[in-house]
Amino acid sequence: MTVIHPVVMCGGSGTRLWPRSRKSQPKPFLPLVGESTLFEATLDRCADGDRFAPPVIVTGAGHRAHVETQSGAHSGTRVIVEPEAKNTAAAIALAAARLDPDAIMLVLPSDHHIADVPAFRAAAHTAANLAREGWLVAFGITPTEPETGFGYILRGAPLEGGFAVERFVEKPDLATAKGFLADGRYSWNGGIFVYRAGTFLDELARHRPALADAVREAVAKGREDGAAFHPDPAAFARIEGESVDYAVMEETDRAAMVPVAMGWSDIGNWQALRDAREGDAAGNRVRGNVELVDCRNVLAETDGPRISVIGLEDIAIVVDGNEVLVTTMAGAQKVGKLGGATNQ
Amino acid sequence: MTVIHPVVMCGGSGTRLWPRSRKSQPKPFLPLVGESTLFEATLDRCADGDRFAPPVIVTGAGHRAHVETQSGAHSGTRVIVEPEAKNTAAAIALAAARLDPDAIMLVLPSDHHIADVPAFRAAAHTAANLAREGWLVAFGITPTEPETGFGYILRGAPLEGGFAVERFVEKPDLATAKGFLADGRYSWNGGIFVYRAGTFLDELARHRPALADAVREAVAKGREDGAAFHPDPAAFARIEGESVDYAVMEETDRAAMVPVAMGWSDIGNWQALRDAREGDAAGNRVRGNVELVDCRNVLAETDGPRISVIGLEDIAIVVDGNEVLVTTMAGAQKVGKLGGATNQ
Repeated sequence: MTVIHPVVMCGGSGTRLWPRSRKSQPKPFLPLVGESTLFEATLDRCADGDRFAPPVIVTGAGHRAHVETQSGAHSGTRVIVEPEAKNTAAAIALAAARLDPDAIMLVLPSDHHIADVPAFRAAAHTAANLAREGWLVAFGITPTEPETGFGYILRGAPLEGGFAVERFVEKPDLATAKGFLADGRYSWNGGIFVYRAGTFLDELARHRPALADAVREAVAKGREDGAAFHPDPAAFARIEGESVDYAVMEETDRAAMVPVAMGWSDIGNWQALRDAREGDAAGNRVRGNVELVDCRNVLAETDGPRISVIGLEDIAIVVDGNEVLVTTMAGAQKVGKLGGATNQ
Repeated sequence: MTVIHPVVMCGGSGTRLWPRSRKSQPKPFLPLVGESTLFEATLDRCADGDRFAPPVIVTGAGHRAHVETQSGAHSGTRVIVEPEAKNTAAAIALAAARLDPDAIMLVLPSDHHIADVPAFRAAAHTAANLAREGWLVAFGITPTEPETGFGYILRGAPLEGGFAVERFVEKPDLATAKGFLADGRYSWNGGIFVYRAGTFLDELARHRPALADAVREAVAKGREDGAAFHPDPAAFARIEGESVDYAVMEETDRAAMVPVAMGWSDIGNWQALRDAREGDAAGNRVRGNVELVDCRNVLAETDGPRISVIGLEDIAIVVDGNEVLVTTMAGAQKVGKLGGATNQ
């Protein structure tokens, strides 16, 4: 069985779960769903020593202390500290360049929730087999709703355990998303990828030669520091940041997808977090000192002050430090644009 | 023109405006509508020296410091400190017994809001004329909604500027209240009364002789203390507390009412307070550090932490100290039953 190298990307803090998630307490490092943080759960999910190598974590200097504290249980963890954030293509390329060209890497966002771990692992190994044959594999997450906040993948010809990718599709409008759901051949693109490291770098060099060059130089001139690696800042600064979707996946003719239904959520806003948590009989999710009267499907959480709620449905109430957020679930998409979220 | 003696009753703290109103910061002494507190506004409303005598304030020891601080601007104010709360019949009787029998007294709750002060004053003087003729006069507030939280007054035969009372009616159900509104002869009983002091005491002695006796003795054995008067605790303790409505108004055959439309509110819950405050173009009322997005008719106020709200309508959000209240306007009636409100 192919050993898989988890590559966990710990990027920006995100503002959509403000005020719980903040610059000083970024989303991946918070225990949002269960008792583990999203980052810890991501590492635990691929911590089977027979099937997974120790993780490689790509992060920025700002998150490094969180990463080191929360990855302590996983021996052999290596950390790549980006001099600055340059989007996912560069982050993945750094990890690929630090691995053996034949290594199979599983690229994972650090802030997603996956309820069905066996399904996740099975998909990873199916994808690993395709990656070994030279495919650049995306997880294609079976959609459960006509979601307009995600990109979609249209599957093409069948492969062993998956499909060639016919086309990556930008975030659709609602009518289009409903069509995708009815069609059955569309999956969500959850930003989870499996590559042979050398193949990924070859494809990057073919489609984004300048980016690939800059990464190669940043790694060659980089500096080891215990378990951490620091790419050369000057070389890295030359990079024009681009997502791996644009830079590689939409360009290559070797894109494949493995369909998977694994209770996935990007915990992209308070509604998604509400849905990822287990509710009581009335669908309410509370944490901390909360009294609810005549409420349904309410998420209420507080780090101290008591919250008392009467008569509400489908709203989120979050008390954190000196901030109180009250939003409808429909309005949760706008949280990141609030004054408090943008001026942290 | 008859000089009127305002008698302001500062009773319990109330729990329906929790968490802003608390035992330690009772409703009458908070600036809930404008910049004055409800108590200050009550005094200011009858502070015309030609028409009104200095006020008599009936309160408990717990509220005395608030009363003295906030009545400082009104020279000649006298305070009666009840040894314990015994409902309105006893409180009014204490004030009546301390006034000249011929004095015309205007009994006022300390925690109501009245938008139209000239209308209030005109009604007071109309009622004073009836009181001088021996009537026990209630303000009959022209109803604007089929309110089920108030008692009603059914008017009878016309008098000069008012009507004899046909009947006092308990809080009705909604269908009955709608009928009252359509009928046109029903008014709200706002707990505002005008009496000749001696007539009130005579009627009390007739219908509640024990109560009248106990008050007489409590006053006779009472103790002066500067501008404050302390009724005798032992005599006062004998009183069986009863509302003036039951003890006198529903018993006497000399009950009258003066109809008045004066923008009255008892500020009886967060919905009433929302409605008493002036809103912005979207009907929102905010105090303190608040950001609203896509909100209508929301009341939001905070004594410190920022409140951010998205997409809500007709709710109240109140942050006070270590408490956060979020309620629909329909649910505002239940605030007093919350754990926080009952265990202060």
